[in-house]
Amino acid sequence: MLKHLLILTAAVPLTACEIRIADSPDDAPRRPSYELTTTAAYDLDAVAVYDQDHAAVYDYIDATLPDHLAAIQRWLRQPSISAQNVGIQEMAELLRQDLVDLGFAEAELVPTDGHPGVWGYYDAGADNTLAVYLMYDVQPVNPDDWLSPPFDAEMIDHELGKVLMARGATNQKGPQRAFLNALEAIIAVDGKLPVNIMIAADGEEELGSPHYPQVVDAYENRLRQADGVLFPFNSQTPDGKINMILGVKGILYVEMIATGGDWGGPSKAEIHGSYKAIVDSPVWRLVKALDSLTSPDGNTILVPDYYEGVRPPTQEESLLINAGIEQRDDAQLQELLSVDHWIDGKTGTDAVIELLYQPTLNIDGIWGGYTGEGTKTILPHQASAKVDSRLPPDLDPDEALAKIRRFLDQQGYGDIEIRKLGGYPAAQTSVETPAVQAALSVFKKYASEISVQPRIAGSAPFYQFTERLGLPMVPTGMGFGTGAHAPNEIMLIEPAEGVAAAGLAQVEKAYVDFVYALAQAK
Amino acid sequence: MLKHLLILTAAVPLTACEIRIADSPDDAPRRPSYELTTTAAYDLDAVAVYDQDHAAVYDYIDATLPDHLAAIQRWLRQPSISAQNVGIQEMAELLRQDLVDLGFAEAELVPTDGHPGVWGYYDAGADNTLAVYLMYDVQPVNPDDWLSPPFDAEMIDHELGKVLMARGATNQKGPQRAFLNALEAIIAVDGKLPVNIMIAADGEEELGSPHYPQVVDAYENRLRQADGVLFPFNSQTPDGKINMILGVKGILYVEMIATGGDWGGPSKAEIHGSYKAIVDSPVWRLVKALDSLTSPDGNTILVPDYYEGVRPPTQEESLLINAGIEQRDDAQLQELLSVDHWIDGKTGTDAVIELLYQPTLNIDGIWGGYTGEGTKTILPHQASAKVDSRLPPDLDPDEALAKIRRFLDQQGYGDIEIRKLGGYPAAQTSVETPAVQAALSVFKKYASEISVQPRIAGSAPFYQFTERLGLPMVPTGMGFGTGAHAPNEIMLIEPAEGVAAAGLAQVEKAYVDFVYALAQAK
Repeated sequence: MLKHLLILTAAVPLTACEIRIADSPDDAPRRPSYELTTTAAYDLDAVAVYDQDHAAVYDYIDATLPDHLAAIQRWLRQPSISAQNVGIQEMAELLRQDLVDLGFAEAELVPTDGHPGVWGYYDAGADNTLAVYLMYDVQPVNPDDWLSPPFDAEMIDHELGKVLMARGATNQKGPQRAFLNALEAIIAVDGKLPVNIMIAADGEEELGSPHYPQVVDAYENRLRQADGVLFPFNSQTPDGKINMILGVKGILYVEMIATGGDWGGPSKAEIHGSYKAIVDSPVWRLVKALDSLTSPDGNTILVPDYYEGVRPPTQEESLLINAGIEQRDDAQLQELLSVDHWIDGKTGTDAVIELLYQPTLNIDGIWGGYTGEGTKTILPHQASAKVDSRLPPDLDPDEALAKIRRFLDQQGYGDIEIRKLGGYPAAQTSVETPAVQAALSVFKKYASEISVQPRIAGSAPFYQFTERLGLPMVPTGMGFGTGAHAPNEIMLIEPAEGVAAAGLAQVEKAYVDFVYALAQAK
Repeated sequence: MLKHLLILTAAVPLTACEIRIADSPDDAPRRPSYELTTTAAYDLDAVAVYDQDHAAVYDYIDATLPDHLAAIQRWLRQPSISAQNVGIQEMAELLRQDLVDLGFAEAELVPTDGHPGVWGYYDAGADNTLAVYLMYDVQPVNPDDWLSPPFDAEMIDHELGKVLMARGATNQKGPQRAFLNALEAIIAVDGKLPVNIMIAADGEEELGSPHYPQVVDAYENRLRQADGVLFPFNSQTPDGKINMILGVKGILYVEMIATGGDWGGPSKAEIHGSYKAIVDSPVWRLVKALDSLTSPDGNTILVPDYYEGVRPPTQEESLLINAGIEQRDDAQLQELLSVDHWIDGKTGTDAVIELLYQPTLNIDGIWGGYTGEGTKTILPHQASAKVDSRLPPDLDPDEALAKIRRFLDQQGYGDIEIRKLGGYPAAQTSVETPAVQAALSVFKKYASEISVQPRIAGSAPFYQFTERLGLPMVPTGMGFGTGAHAPNEIMLIEPAEGVAAAGLAQVEKAYVDFVYALAQAK
């Protein structure tokens, strides 16, 4: 802890100016750096392989696979685009009815100020309870970009085998309905599930889950009784490797807007560009205000105290990072992203630590004035930027927002409007929790390679479960898919010869094992 | 000259950083300030009133006014939208044929790499020759926004009287065809014109006249023989005041583009925003590069030597500014533009000097990444800005561009692409030239109030005549119009009782007088 404090003290951001007069780049203010607590690696060998055999259920899955595939297609053929309010009510009702058909004692829509949630409870009379986070919405589509229409959900021949192509195929209807198929198989063979199930589905995940807290509000006391939360997730690479993720960063998402006003500049409409000689510019003002927030390379946040409170790597996180580092291929990822090098040329463990522990300040979009073809000479009255900040554990989005506001005010940018568009804190689950251990033991039965990441750099509103309800949460499962948020989204159904990633039948069998493994946990 | 140099020396831009550590705002780098050479004012009383009477021509105009109005309507009903290539050939041919019908010995289209120019020569066998700059193109329209269809050119009742409403009514077909009507009247009554006329028309004025130099190329030696250039222009306010403009600033218009590449950042497509922790951002890079170009208030250009060579006010310009200052109403203009105050609170002469003598760096538009509703978390691979720089006399747009390029390179922003979208130098005409004196003498006959501005802050490619050919150029005429580049563009045709601005008949009579006055000049 002392070491951590020392690092932070040395890294208190200097002013923007002090950077610029630095004699050498080494004098520039730098974000804190973090170090792992150990060079030892997490020992996956110590996790026992799940060795029970549910042959009758597996056989049922094999025998009814066309029906299970059809159930997934039924979901995929129902559009449910939250951003455009297309098919939302229909999809919520479809999910609710499926829960009724599976034998859920409770299955109901949950009104919110936005799209409804869906709640379901399967009472197995069991000791253990598994909560399941589902999202029933999908991203918008541009049908022209698709090889097969995005809501036709056709089986397509792919180099990896037969795949389902549809919006939502892997994000997230495919794996989610595969999980329900697994429940259906257990119930069909054994008469009932070995665990109680709570479903708490979100209809606005693709919008940043703005009203999901209202769903949790409605069932908070019930959810607190769960032993863990599953988010069914295709976690394999094509070569069969399983990536398990135990945490996500939080996020703050704001719009910053400069408008002419008392400080200067036109306040109502653009004016002729030649007036720049005597009129201040809101676009320049936005540029200056944004510039003040980061170092010259755009990579260190200059907002005072912004890095304060970042939780440095724990022993468990350090062990997990060390265990995963050999499988990491920076060059491959850089090629995929068309990025020449990471910031400051970091690689390996250094890059992972940056990725998982640094708060960020990113400009998602910027706009103002004339942006069409050719020339138009105007002095715009307004300019805006969308800015997001990824927040590692223990940083609060509202505190981050307050720090940015205060810093802009201190610099005289009180006129810059900041509109909060969304935000929530990070989420973190321990590898030692029963839900995670159950999943790992099952994966060891099927997969030759498993990596467990303590966290990803992206965000998801899992804090509702981990931080608010104190539950372990694991977004996981076997299976492979790709193309989330892009055209030609797919989920692998029948792997081609030599493709190690699981097909639908194996995905479902692993969910069967996971449910049984969790039933026996504690 | 020595004083000028001293001002520039004191104002050599410091670095962006030195601004930020300034103990007080007074230490910040400041653009040069300029001073008038005198407190005396230009004496318009010394200009003789044009006192000749061309009663027979005036009577002809009154008698044939419906035909003259119809000639204007014929032009206005022919769309000629250069940006969309709508009706361009038809309008060029219509103009050419009108010149033939008026008795021009030469009337021909002038091929260019864009829309054609039109050349016409009327040989009066006279000593003096008037060149006339015409533009036959107009801005695009959104017909839904118009009270009367933009190409119907109907007469409309307006609070100022009867007006013609059409795209091009005042910018620029109305006053231009009124000038040709005046020539027609003179020829009809006197048999021929008292001056030779050269017409050199532009079909791409609304595009920034990119190919007009090719029109001048084709007739350069002929045009050099002219005594002055007229751009027929409705120069009156509704209360009859005439604003004469003797100069324009030049302009440089560029697009600045930051893209991921060797320096960092994604180079091919946007990537997930969470990668900001290890990936540089082209949007931040554009913000930083732009920021480096100006002082914290966005109003002083920090590009080294950018202000070098600005020609400070001459004696003539100083006299003209002093003569016009009493008519200037800063508060009224600020209200019109919805601007709280000019830069640094300047008013009166100080504001005029800033407006007319300062080079500017203005961001016309900026864009990159996601700019739609709500949130999308991406790290864009590109961001762009449209930037224009208004250049007072003696600053060259290509030199300005080279200075910006050099400064960005020096700061390590060699990767920032600068695309030149257009540019040309300033233009300036002396009030003492025969063409200007002829116009002033005529205006004194008709108008009670005349202001002569040595320059406006806006730009026009008049340098083709003033700087290249050494000819005086005067965009002037009586008449009133408004709505250029906007819906419901009008030209006043029949002023209502008590409206002092000229109607069509008086506009044409003043052009008649101007032609005769110029014939007698030298």
